[in-house]
Amino acid sequence: MRRPDDPSVDTSSVVEQPLSRQARQMLQIDFLVQDPGLEDLTLQERLRTWCQEALDRRGKVAGLVAIARVADAFATMDREERDGFYRMLIRHFSVDAKDVEEAVQAYLAATGPRARELARLTSVLESPRLQLYRQFNTVPQGIKFLLDLRADVDSRLKEDPDLWLMESELRHLLESWFNIGFLRLERITWASPAALLEKLVEYEAVHAIASWEDLKRRLHADRACFAFLHPAMPTEPVIFMVVALVRGLAGCIQDLLDPRAPALEPQRADTAIFYSITNAQRGLRGIPFGNLLIKQAAARLRSELPNLQTFSTLSPIPHFNDDYLQLAIEDGSIAGSFAPDEAERLCALTGEAEVARAVASVLATPAWPRNSRLAEALRPGLLRAARTYLTERQRLGRVACPVGHFHGSNGAKLGRINWLGDTSAVGMARSCGMMVNYLYELDMFDQFQADYTRTGRLPVDEAVQLL
Amino acid sequence: MRRPDDPSVDTSSVVEQPLSRQARQMLQIDFLVQDPGLEDLTLQERLRTWCQEALDRRGKVAGLVAIARVADAFATMDREERDGFYRMLIRHFSVDAKDVEEAVQAYLAATGPRARELARLTSVLESPRLQLYRQFNTVPQGIKFLLDLRADVDSRLKEDPDLWLMESELRHLLESWFNIGFLRLERITWASPAALLEKLVEYEAVHAIASWEDLKRRLHADRACFAFLHPAMPTEPVIFMVVALVRGLAGCIQDLLDPRAPALEPQRADTAIFYSITNAQRGLRGIPFGNLLIKQAAARLRSELPNLQTFSTLSPIPHFNDDYLQLAIEDGSIAGSFAPDEAERLCALTGEAEVARAVASVLATPAWPRNSRLAEALRPGLLRAARTYLTERQRLGRVACPVGHFHGSNGAKLGRINWLGDTSAVGMARSCGMMVNYLYELDMFDQFQADYTRTGRLPVDEAVQLL
Amino acid sequence: MRRPDDPSVDTSSVVEQPLSRQARQMLQIDFLVQDPGLEDLTLQERLRTWCQEALDRRGKVAGLVAIARVADAFATMDREERDGFYRMLIRHFSVDAKDVEEAVQAYLAATGPRARELARLTSVLESPRLQLYRQFNTVPQGIKFLLDLRADVDSRLKEDPDLWLMESELRHLLESWFNIGFLRLERITWASPAALLEKLVEYEAVHAIASWEDLKRRLHADRACFAFLHPAMPTEPVIFMVVALVRGLAGCIQDLLDPRAPALEPQRADTAIFYSITNAQRGLRGIPFGNLLIKQAAARLRSELPNLQTFSTLSPIPHFNDDYLQLAIEDGSIAGSFAPDEAERLCALTGEAEVARAVASVLATPAWPRNSRLAEALRPGLLRAARTYLTERQRLGRVACPVGHFHGSNGAKLGRINWLGDTSAVGMARSCGMMVNYLYELDMFDQFQADYTRTGRLPVDEAVQLL
Amino acid sequence: MRRPDDPSVDTSSVVEQPLSRQARQMLQIDFLVQDPGLEDLTLQERLRTWCQEALDRRGKVAGLVAIARVADAFATMDREERDGFYRMLIRHFSVDAKDVEEAVQAYLAATGPRARELARLTSVLESPRLQLYRQFNTVPQGIKFLLDLRADVDSRLKEDPDLWLMESELRHLLESWFNIGFLRLERITWASPAALLEKLVEYEAVHAIASWEDLKRRLHADRACFAFLHPAMPTEPVIFMVVALVRGLAGCIQDLLDPRAPALEPQRADTAIFYSITNAQRGLRGIPFGNLLIKQAAARLRSELPNLQTFSTLSPIPHFNDDYLQLAIEDGSIAGSFAPDEAERLCALTGEAEVARAVASVLATPAWPRNSRLAEALRPGLLRAARTYLTERQRLGRVACPVGHFHGSNGAKLGRINWLGDTSAVGMARSCGMMVNYLYELDMFDQFQADYTRTGRLPVDEAVQLL
Repeated sequence: MRRPDDPSVDTSSVVEQPLSRQARQMLQIDFLVQDPGLEDLTLQERLRTWCQEALDRRGKVAGLVAIARVADAFATMDREERDGFYRMLIRHFSVDAKDVEEAVQAYLAATGPRARELARLTSVLESPRLQLYRQFNTVPQGIKFLLDLRADVDSRLKEDPDLWLMESELRHLLESWFNIGFLRLERITWASPAALLEKLVEYEAVHAIASWEDLKRRLHADRACFAFLHPAMPTEPVIFMVVALVRGLAGCIQDLLDPRAPALEPQRADTAIFYSITNAQRGLRGIPFGNLLIKQAAARLRSELPNLQTFSTLSPIPHFNDDYLQLAIEDGSIAGSFAPDEAERLCALTGEAEVARAVASVLATPAWPRNSRLAEALRPGLLRAARTYLTERQRLGRVACPVGHFHGSNGAKLGRINWLGDTSAVGMARSCGMMVNYLYELDMFDQFQADYTRTGRLPVDEAVQLL
Repeated sequence: MRRPDDPSVDTSSVVEQPLSRQARQMLQIDFLVQDPGLEDLTLQERLRTWCQEALDRRGKVAGLVAIARVADAFATMDREERDGFYRMLIRHFSVDAKDVEEAVQAYLAATGPRARELARLTSVLESPRLQLYRQFNTVPQGIKFLLDLRADVDSRLKEDPDLWLMESELRHLLESWFNIGFLRLERITWASPAALLEKLVEYEAVHAIASWEDLKRRLHADRACFAFLHPAMPTEPVIFMVVALVRGLAGCIQDLLDPRAPALEPQRADTAIFYSITNAQRGLRGIPFGNLLIKQAAARLRSELPNLQTFSTLSPIPHFNDDYLQLAIEDGSIAGSFAPDEAERLCALTGEAEVARAVASVLATPAWPRNSRLAEALRPGLLRAARTYLTERQRLGRVACPVGHFHGSNGAKLGRINWLGDTSAVGMARSCGMMVNYLYELDMFDQFQADYTRTGRLPVDEAVQLL
Repeated sequence: MRRPDDPSVDTSSVVEQPLSRQARQMLQIDFLVQDPGLEDLTLQERLRTWCQEALDRRGKVAGLVAIARVADAFATMDREERDGFYRMLIRHFSVDAKDVEEAVQAYLAATGPRARELARLTSVLESPRLQLYRQFNTVPQGIKFLLDLRADVDSRLKEDPDLWLMESELRHLLESWFNIGFLRLERITWASPAALLEKLVEYEAVHAIASWEDLKRRLHADRACFAFLHPAMPTEPVIFMVVALVRGLAGCIQDLLDPRAPALEPQRADTAIFYSITNAQRGLRGIPFGNLLIKQAAARLRSELPNLQTFSTLSPIPHFNDDYLQLAIEDGSIAGSFAPDEAERLCALTGEAEVARAVASVLATPAWPRNSRLAEALRPGLLRAARTYLTERQRLGRVACPVGHFHGSNGAKLGRINWLGDTSAVGMARSCGMMVNYLYELDMFDQFQADYTRTGRLPVDEAVQLL
Repeated sequence: MRRPDDPSVDTSSVVEQPLSRQARQMLQIDFLVQDPGLEDLTLQERLRTWCQEALDRRGKVAGLVAIARVADAFATMDREERDGFYRMLIRHFSVDAKDVEEAVQAYLAATGPRARELARLTSVLESPRLQLYRQFNTVPQGIKFLLDLRADVDSRLKEDPDLWLMESELRHLLESWFNIGFLRLERITWASPAALLEKLVEYEAVHAIASWEDLKRRLHADRACFAFLHPAMPTEPVIFMVVALVRGLAGCIQDLLDPRAPALEPQRADTAIFYSITNAQRGLRGIPFGNLLIKQAAARLRSELPNLQTFSTLSPIPHFNDDYLQLAIEDGSIAGSFAPDEAERLCALTGEAEVARAVASVLATPAWPRNSRLAEALRPGLLRAARTYLTERQRLGRVACPVGHFHGSNGAKLGRINWLGDTSAVGMARSCGMMVNYLYELDMFDQFQADYTRTGRLPVDEAVQLL
């Protein structure tokens, strides 16, 4: 019987040792490797030799060691050396133009289904570089290397269009390997490996984690953290999400993040608030995962805690101020809800244009919510403006707000717009402090998702309609 | 902490339930699925609808269920229905010829590195069918479905060349997913899951397993079974290998398989005999794994049992009789080792041609080894002929014997040719009962492998040279 | 570094190798052990030396090896040698009578709370033998050895009262170690280790398992098998239970065991039938576990399959015929339900005594159910007799039927008495083919359990009352 | 389907939730529990009711919940309430004095082997309290509760002799449950659960861990941490040990603890230094584990890193200054090694008594090592004195130094005495900065252990003898 919890590779050492050393250890092939003696070559020559070796002897021990040497070298290269590496890959490991030419001509010359010609064309278009990338999967952390490689290539794309093909090959390969079927949903707890928890602290993008104590609080019984993990990277989350278990729909992010808030017994919670989703790997930009993560996490939580009735996000409206606020001010949507005398009393102004200017200048001062009368007067107009923004404003036939679009295309509905839901400077600056609950109704979202795809409009809860 | 290798789904139910049911269970999405009401359509129309749905809603719950429905339907289709399915896939999910044409022309028209044009060409050459295949990974047993699909397509290839492109796409995809880096070497023991052991019984190709008792004997302490497993198929071996732990180089397969042979304490063994390697998945034909399996298994055994000194196969010479025996008889290699009077006495014949005919007819009777004088007389000539066959006979610049080539390209050397190593009818018919030990010397095989690649000739142990 | 899934000890070898060898392997202390050179001693002298060594060097490597040698020797001893072993243990490893005498006198002489005197008395009463038993936990399979030791000692108890104290010490120790808190509820499936499944086949006491195929059928998706496992015996079930998932209350055991019955989709089942519970270890006789097993299994099933509404056993009435049938025949309970003419017609008899004799002789022929009129006539009387037996007949203030008592004291209620629920020869002979459903109502059984403890009477479902 | 071993309880919540809540969750019996309504009773009355319930309904759900309530209440009791709890246990759950009296008299009255009378006496001496303790194993964290209970009782023992029997029962029970056979040696790495690593930080007694970063450094590839874990407390180490992998015998603890020291590739290490062993559970005082931990850890390391040749501790001589320094000064051992003129020059003194006084006063100033001539002069005498102390000074027939005795009785030998091996204030104050390497020679320590048991003297390496 095997020991269930014996760590496969001492992760602490994984972090610090060269990959070529690790590859030998993992494959238990320490005794087999001959050193090829490349000391006299330049870095790029050595890289080229290793890459060629990795291709020529793929699946053999020598090939594995060559791959690991490339990954080790890459880790210590500076910006310029990496550039040289990319040039070398483009120069020596691209498709053979002559082969392509011939295959193209053969395709054009043929008739009928042309299956063979298509297959040949497809085949010659697969560059040696792509075959090389595939070899990285065979060494420990090789997949993480590919992610880092793509992140780096991706960041240079604008200034260096030559990298375009390289990036496209990498994205394509990673899309195939980070296919949802290879990912595993895992509940992350305080009993998870420290090497994994450390990455949460590092990656959490939405609401930064200050310390291990802060992290521990976020993994309390009234919180739940879920991640997708890839078997080739057991301590690297692909995407993760934090859920708060509360009573009633939570509308204020500051309350959820308050480290002094008392913990609720999870059995007493009736609502799960998904308040943070983080894509952890820059190298996976443009490859979507969030959809199933929310659904699977919701289903898992409901089976563990049958008292949970409501599954909701607590989400920002990131571009409300930029995209729409000025418009709403100008067309009077906001001031329109002021009682006439109130507008005067508050702003000491008459005339729509003046009121609009005044409202705009008020909202430009982050401290305005402290004036409670003012805030109260602004409230109905701003909430309505947010509702209009989320329900009516479209771009490319879908909800203009990217967060609204994300949840809409996942099958959520617009559940509540929260007044002063995020009073941080950022929150005020992007949406006058408003936050949104998108509701996930487990038995409806297949329907909602189909509707959204068709109409590009979010289903709206009655509460929001009555606003 | 959960066990890393514990299958998330009760395997017993996996076997019996429809995939669409399992997909819902696995994803915990039982409550979400709307039935599309396709009862009035023909089977092929339904299949087409599901395939389209799987592509349009990929990564969504509806897409997963559609995929699972395809797999369920496939399992019950007869030969003709499958044929219809393949036609439908070719007709409706192939590349768009017009797109290809345009991309080809754009490529031909462009100059310079043409990165964008290449990327576009690559992109249009990826058929919707291939994208569809990728979705199968998202449902339980979907990968096993693809293996079975390829095995079926592969078996029709000769008579139906239209399937050529389909097969090529499938092979390419499976090659990427059954990349060595995704496979896990596991020691299979009597404590392994019954659902996995059952597959060994089913698949063992080299020496059939008669019963669970027989299997248990093969997993005794003086045996070791290793398999490569893929994370998406926890109870399906990809390839497996059985090792006997013995004292001294074993030369006779019947001794190893004898169920009444007493078990040796593994600590007392000095030699590991790899006597059977089975590629378990027909759908992976042409995708090689054996190389690392032997090396990793050898390394693992040596670390557990430091007394092991020798790692060797006990292998057949499958085509010796067909390929070479007649030649050897005719050129006198075999009879040449008879003492002149012996040939006369044994065969009552003189003259080379007559002796050759006599030898041929003797060897055609499987029972000849029972005549020990005759056997003794034949021995030196046959062993030498086998040596010549293995060391000198080449085809396409490599060892003609496919088993010899396999081990040669893995870095093994020719260690011993065993007289009467397999006296079964099969063994007599393919190599006059001779068996071969290929030796794996852990600190030499990187060298040997490189030599073999260069020369196409097996390194030969002194014992064989002196033969 | 060793990989995580590297089996620390190959379980298959565990089964076959001497414990002393295994102990060295497990503790990785192979290099440490000096052989004491006891070849000249008799078996009992060697055993005594090893036992003494195990006590003197407890917790040291030498002690562990000594313990393992005792266990190895025991495995090959015949009945007489074991008897000698027990004598030796009684003679040399019992409490010191003088110490006891002194401690007793000190206790009697003291006054007040006498804590020290009690502690000393307790201490001297712990025999070296008991301390020796505790050491067995330190070697692989040592706990299984103790179970087998107790089973053997227990079986000799009647003829050899000297073993009484030994047995009492063993029971006491095992009770402490097989405490419910150390046991782990596990779902057994076809993916469980073969080494464990093999034990189910061996131990299943209620309905014998014919083959691996039969076993596989019992682990299908519409069955569930649960076991308590002890961490020191990962492939030995302590107790296990088989559940059938069905629609409606199942009343006939032959239907459940029919290998050709079609499998039900588990999600469609509304009822779980616990049809077999097996205490797997004779060495744990008298130490109860069944109670929590049923409750935990029911709770686990309900959380996995929320459609399950009813949890019931399908149980025999093992002593009905022996204990009660004759009485019921004699007092006319059975024939009383015949219509007068029916009795005459069926039995051609008048007069109570004659009818009673006739009924008794009919019921003595196992084939009587084939006569359907006769069976129909007997049915009401027999069912009522069974009800009376289960609800009114008591022994020692509790239900006379041991199965009824077991489930009553677990909090079950009497749910249904099934006519012809077990038509096997055994079933006919023990309860005229009747079987009982005891119902476990999850929200009532704490109450029912308390009631039963107080009254010694089973709660009865209305259906039974109306019978 | 939920994975069978998926922990139904999030370990992080285990820490924070009441045990009675956890017990219900773990047993999935949330729906079963009736609240007994004890609000009107005093704390001690409630405790007594729960304890009685736990005994009366042991193994039943109600019993488990009662036990958990006791544990929950205990966690919030103050010192005085705990005292009341102990009184209550002594008063109501002790042995029945009358039963004991009768059993004692029966024993005295009987003759022969008196097996039954002994068994009865043993039985009546087992208090209800002890039976109650055993029930704690059945609830989550119940074992940790018993450890904490014993630690508390143990700390009151001196002032409250009434607790003596209670403590003795607890120790006896824990000794049985923390038997080496139940413990599992585990390698602790940065991939271990944070909930476990957090305990290392909390418990590390020898060299305090400052932060998570410090901890991570101690789990680097050139360190190894091993712990014994008990299955009932997966995130609580029982005992743990930290090993540094170095080249050559390390003599200075400050070098090992230096966080800026570069990490060594573990494959290059030839020596393992066991520099810290921590007994993590005060409740296990007096129950020894260290012996096998060292040996198993050494064996495991050697199998992973075959280059390791030497296994050694780096240990303090905690009582050297207190026990022996003054004696050594007085008998001239230390000053005796001064060259005559050196003594004069250094101390400006003549006459033995004056030199002794001077040496004593020098050594009383912690900064003396900074004067390198002085230090050099003191070195030979102090090292010799330490050697004499460790090799000749005995107490109760064994080495007087407790650390020396511990390692001697484990089979180690005295390998080297290190000059200025611990220059911290503590190190100077207890042994003038000297540290000791005790060597574990894997193939000798069974022999050494036996010798030490016989002679009470440490085997001494030649290097020390020549000192």
